[in-house]
Amino acid sequence: MAVTERWHRARRLVSGRRTLDSTGRHRPDRRTAAGPGSDARRTVRGPRTLNEEERVALLTRIRGPRDLDRLTPGQLAALAQEIRTFLVTEVSKTGGHLGPNLGVVELTIALHRVFDSPRDRILFDTGHQSYVHKLLTGRQDFSRLRMKGGLSGYPSRAESEHDVIENSHASTVLSYADGLAKANQILGKNDPVVAVIGDGALTGGMAWEALNNIADAKDRPLVIVVNDNERSYSPTIGGLANHLATLRTTQGYERFLSWGKDALQRTPVVGQQLFETLHGAKKGLKDFIAPQGMFEDLGLKYIGPIDGHDMAALESALTKARGFGGPVIVHCLTEKGRGYHAAENNDEDRFHAVGVIHPETGLPIKSAGKDWTSVFAEEMVALGHEREDIVGITAAMLHPVGLAPFAEAFPDRIFDVGIAEQHAVTSAAGLATNGLHPVFAVYATFLNRAFDQVLMDVALHKLGVTFVLDRAGVTGTDGASHNGMWDMSILQIIPTLRLAAPRDADQVRAQLREAVEVKDAPTVVRYSKGTVGPAVPAVGRIGGMDVLRAAEEPSGAHRADVLIVSVGAMAPTSLEVADLLAAQGVTATVVDPRWVKPVDAALPGLAAEHRVVVTIEDNGRVGGVGAAVAQALRDADVDLPVRDFGIPQEFLDHASRAEILAEIGLNAPDIARKVTALVAKLDAAPVKA
Amino acid sequence: MAVTERWHRARRLVSGRRTLDSTGRHRPDRRTAAGPGSDARRTVRGPRTLNEEERVALLTRIRGPRDLDRLTPGQLAALAQEIRTFLVTEVSKTGGHLGPNLGVVELTIALHRVFDSPRDRILFDTGHQSYVHKLLTGRQDFSRLRMKGGLSGYPSRAESEHDVIENSHASTVLSYADGLAKANQILGKNDPVVAVIGDGALTGGMAWEALNNIADAKDRPLVIVVNDNERSYSPTIGGLANHLATLRTTQGYERFLSWGKDALQRTPVVGQQLFETLHGAKKGLKDFIAPQGMFEDLGLKYIGPIDGHDMAALESALTKARGFGGPVIVHCLTEKGRGYHAAENNDEDRFHAVGVIHPETGLPIKSAGKDWTSVFAEEMVALGHEREDIVGITAAMLHPVGLAPFAEAFPDRIFDVGIAEQHAVTSAAGLATNGLHPVFAVYATFLNRAFDQVLMDVALHKLGVTFVLDRAGVTGTDGASHNGMWDMSILQIIPTLRLAAPRDADQVRAQLREAVEVKDAPTVVRYSKGTVGPAVPAVGRIGGMDVLRAAEEPSGAHRADVLIVSVGAMAPTSLEVADLLAAQGVTATVVDPRWVKPVDAALPGLAAEHRVVVTIEDNGRVGGVGAAVAQALRDADVDLPVRDFGIPQEFLDHASRAEILAEIGLNAPDIARKVTALVAKLDAAPVKA
Repeated sequence: MAVTERWHRARRLVSGRRTLDSTGRHRPDRRTAAGPGSDARRTVRGPRTLNEEERVALLTRIRGPRDLDRLTPGQLAALAQEIRTFLVTEVSKTGGHLGPNLGVVELTIALHRVFDSPRDRILFDTGHQSYVHKLLTGRQDFSRLRMKGGLSGYPSRAESEHDVIENSHASTVLSYADGLAKANQILGKNDPVVAVIGDGALTGGMAWEALNNIADAKDRPLVIVVNDNERSYSPTIGGLANHLATLRTTQGYERFLSWGKDALQRTPVVGQQLFETLHGAKKGLKDFIAPQGMFEDLGLKYIGPIDGHDMAALESALTKARGFGGPVIVHCLTEKGRGYHAAENNDEDRFHAVGVIHPETGLPIKSAGKDWTSVFAEEMVALGHEREDIVGITAAMLHPVGLAPFAEAFPDRIFDVGIAEQHAVTSAAGLATNGLHPVFAVYATFLNRAFDQVLMDVALHKLGVTFVLDRAGVTGTDGASHNGMWDMSILQIIPTLRLAAPRDADQVRAQLREAVEVKDAPTVVRYSKGTVGPAVPAVGRIGGMDVLRAAEEPSGAHRADVLIVSVGAMAPTSLEVADLLAAQGVTATVVDPRWVKPVDAALPGLAAEHRVVVTIEDNGRVGGVGAAVAQALRDADVDLPVRDFGIPQEFLDHASRAEILAEIGLNAPDIARKVTALVAKLDAAPVKA
Repeated sequence: MAVTERWHRARRLVSGRRTLDSTGRHRPDRRTAAGPGSDARRTVRGPRTLNEEERVALLTRIRGPRDLDRLTPGQLAALAQEIRTFLVTEVSKTGGHLGPNLGVVELTIALHRVFDSPRDRILFDTGHQSYVHKLLTGRQDFSRLRMKGGLSGYPSRAESEHDVIENSHASTVLSYADGLAKANQILGKNDPVVAVIGDGALTGGMAWEALNNIADAKDRPLVIVVNDNERSYSPTIGGLANHLATLRTTQGYERFLSWGKDALQRTPVVGQQLFETLHGAKKGLKDFIAPQGMFEDLGLKYIGPIDGHDMAALESALTKARGFGGPVIVHCLTEKGRGYHAAENNDEDRFHAVGVIHPETGLPIKSAGKDWTSVFAEEMVALGHEREDIVGITAAMLHPVGLAPFAEAFPDRIFDVGIAEQHAVTSAAGLATNGLHPVFAVYATFLNRAFDQVLMDVALHKLGVTFVLDRAGVTGTDGASHNGMWDMSILQIIPTLRLAAPRDADQVRAQLREAVEVKDAPTVVRYSKGTVGPAVPAVGRIGGMDVLRAAEEPSGAHRADVLIVSVGAMAPTSLEVADLLAAQGVTATVVDPRWVKPVDAALPGLAAEHRVVVTIEDNGRVGGVGAAVAQALRDADVDLPVRDFGIPQEFLDHASRAEILAEIGLNAPDIARKVTALVAKLDAAPVKA
């Protein structure tokens, strides 16, 4: 579909405060109160009518940030509209982070007009709000977004010199920026560093560590843009916010304070809202305004709050910040999902990240089968009814990790701690110390943030805390930092910890129940992303291990040639390997240890009845289950050839899970071929001793 | 030595603001200005003279916290004096955290008088300031402090029901407390939770994550005691502080603010000091007062600052806090090393942690040989002169990690980020992005806090950052959370990272130089605690590996029976193993790979010329160098018996390093015996294939 066609079709889907009327004129939304920025706004929303071609051509004519310089205010507004249309149309087709990017259209344009990337470094925290940045820096082919060979869903240094950091774990950007600014100072450069961070990410401990340091050096130019998309932001507060910004930047903090107190007494309605804002009566608002006083306390210059959809106000604030010459906060209020009615009407997450959706309705195109997360979600509710001591914890991901139904059923027993994995773990330790059993559900890759806390605060203290790791293994499209390929390695290191890798829905339920029975050690249940496969029945049990396939033809001293140790969702692959081996005349036993840590006591004895041990896991090979099995065999003086199959210890580029598994050879044909070759070698020449 | 004798001897060593005059009377220090607290103070310091026996007997008569209830103010003051005497005398003999404990004598007494432990939970962050708490909870035999079988240097749940958390990694306590308070609320209990945290630990990200959550629930009783031992605290500020505290608790924040402004205008000198305090002009003062406004912004009740050596003021503030019924901060100003002239005169760290010292002079009893840290310290300075791009980073441990000489030589190229390991790592990534080469020196165990940052922010971004890990391996006396036994396992997981384990001082220098040459990946140099041994010369080189001992009698297809892979400081042990094996007729090659990650490409080939591979490392066995070597052999189809010797994956109780190594069998005789047995078994029956 040509860009023009796409635009025509998507145009009617795009609503928003600055809607186009039938003549194509910009019609200011009535909810937007007049304020100090309103003059500028009139300029932006002037009556000049752009023709369709001019408008559509705008985006495609932007090859780099400097192409923004020559645009008129009217053209900038049109460009913003065009970008929204583009995002809705394109991201609907591929899936991706839609809501956050719709919220930062004007902000990103303003950033690139005021700062000169890449000389001035513009960094995006987490990076899922970098789509607009991509569009403005020469990357406009979104047709393969997050697919193999297509654009990454995050900044990517391989894609562009305008991208500086590509980690999608939150709250890192201020630390990066501090380092960049320190380096500039040492090198005698005066270029400002710009860090864009969401209000949510400010709850992460790293962000505070960074602020504490940034505030220490008054002479390093560093602009912190807080992209505050708190939805409680309303027009009245917005108008007030502009007023506050003016007061703040021209008259200082004390005047602002006294003005605030006066305003409180003079105008009850506005005053009440100010009061609520300042004191964070409403959950989330705390983050909106609390930083202001705090930043001041730390000695940071503060500009804001700014209407993050008012281009002129943004440019003015960012220009002030750029000229300041030291660390400064620019507090921008933006609206997630801005301009897309389906997102604006979605209370849950405003289309934070979507799959492939229908652009008009915002509904998913294909409805997937039952996924791992919802199996957990159901079982948690059941457990909650049975045991009053069970509490849930999430780090700002109540819905994605499946704790929303539990929260609804047991509102007093759920804690959302914000993006704060360390606190999630150690507060869980506190809950367990007082006799409760916390279940912290989190994406596998994000538990990395709390390794020390699981080790020291939970395991050392012999506390019963259960960790449920979602999105474990290769997740694919979100790229290197979202693959859950580290958890089974770092967790192996932790004494006493028990780790379950359920292979199907039944096992998720069963092992979750076993996990919450453990009272004196951390337990972990980890499973994959997406649809859970059909049940894989056990045909027997040895020790605590499920036998998934007994060797057909036991012969001589060992039951079979090969013992396959299958981990979690690799069960179907493991069984397929056994089939392929059988076709080559190689017999195989397949076991699922269920609990992969500690290694089952019966495993070395069983292994000794085979000639080769093969492990198959959806985790990094280094220090994973295969390594643990090999060590257990050594410790038991069972010196057999072991081959451990898993994810090579590399950062994987984004692609589909299937593409990645094929590429890394983590599939039945590749594994079977290698194992067959090994057995053939053993047949030909016994191991020397 | 009897307690009385000890007291007489140590009494003259104890100085401090409340010194005893020749009659044994309490003489108020002239530096202490009169203030609102002075009435209470007169009570405490009343003229009643306690006789020696009464005084000495006090401490020994305290069997538990409730024994404090019946003491008069005069007796409490005497008890405090007695405790200081005890600490100086006893800790001089064993080594330990002296300065911090001398600073919290009154505070700990007050805590135990106001709160009812263990029903009320009193938690100490980091825990090195828990000696006084131990003395008041029935643990007064310090003769084997930090030794095998003696008291732990930190709280220990095995020792007492009054100890709740025993992790000595900083900044965790507020998260624990939040969890405990949440559990109390769910369980319908109203017992307050008390968390004692140092001002330094407040810079850690976890603490902020916790505060953000604690502030969210107004109805959970949680008392946060900030033990602020910032040395810039001076009498004038202290008097002012009492005034502020009074204003704060009786009149509210607004009155305090306006009073502050008035005071600023009225009294220029005091005002100037207030100004400096509020705005943190002096490094460190930022932490002293900044939290106040911030706590208020977050919605936390704040009481303080309190003179942390004024027992009456402390009890009054804590009592108020206990009755508040929600989260509240009590900000106490204490003086590290209080009452011990040698500590008070020590500018560096006020005897934060000491070895065995002479109690009168505070000087070390035995001067150790050259330690690993100082080798690094010297080489860093040399490197700094040669390369302008090298910068140093420390997380609040400039002196202990050996960066002080570098800081002195290159004050513009050193960054102390506070207790903030995550920020240390990611700001290093920022520095490296702009072309500098940061060296972050840190205790091995504390790098756990920043695993995700090394992985994602440095390695994924292909940045040249060097990590120098001090106190790696078994450190012993500080117990489970100080042993550096995790680093070589978690770091194995990180793609591209290169890890060096130098075996002697020459290798520290050489490998540090090699590390800072790497521009596109993280590099790590890890070494032990304490005195570095004599040089261990190489007799040859294979690939990148130093051969420390070539097998004497190569015979047949392999050079020797056993290939010993020696890691870092285990070189002398490895050579001793080879000697012991030789005595049994078993030949051995000993190599030091120097860079233990990645595994040297020449290793599998070399291994294939032996019958058995043995690895010896001072690191946890799970996922360590041995596991990596075994995996490399599997990947190269070299299927030999491997035996990996290291630290068992357990939490080790405190004891000397030698005692622990003996206990875990990480010594030459134990290793040699096991290897000899394996070789004998191989001789008897070849491995089946």
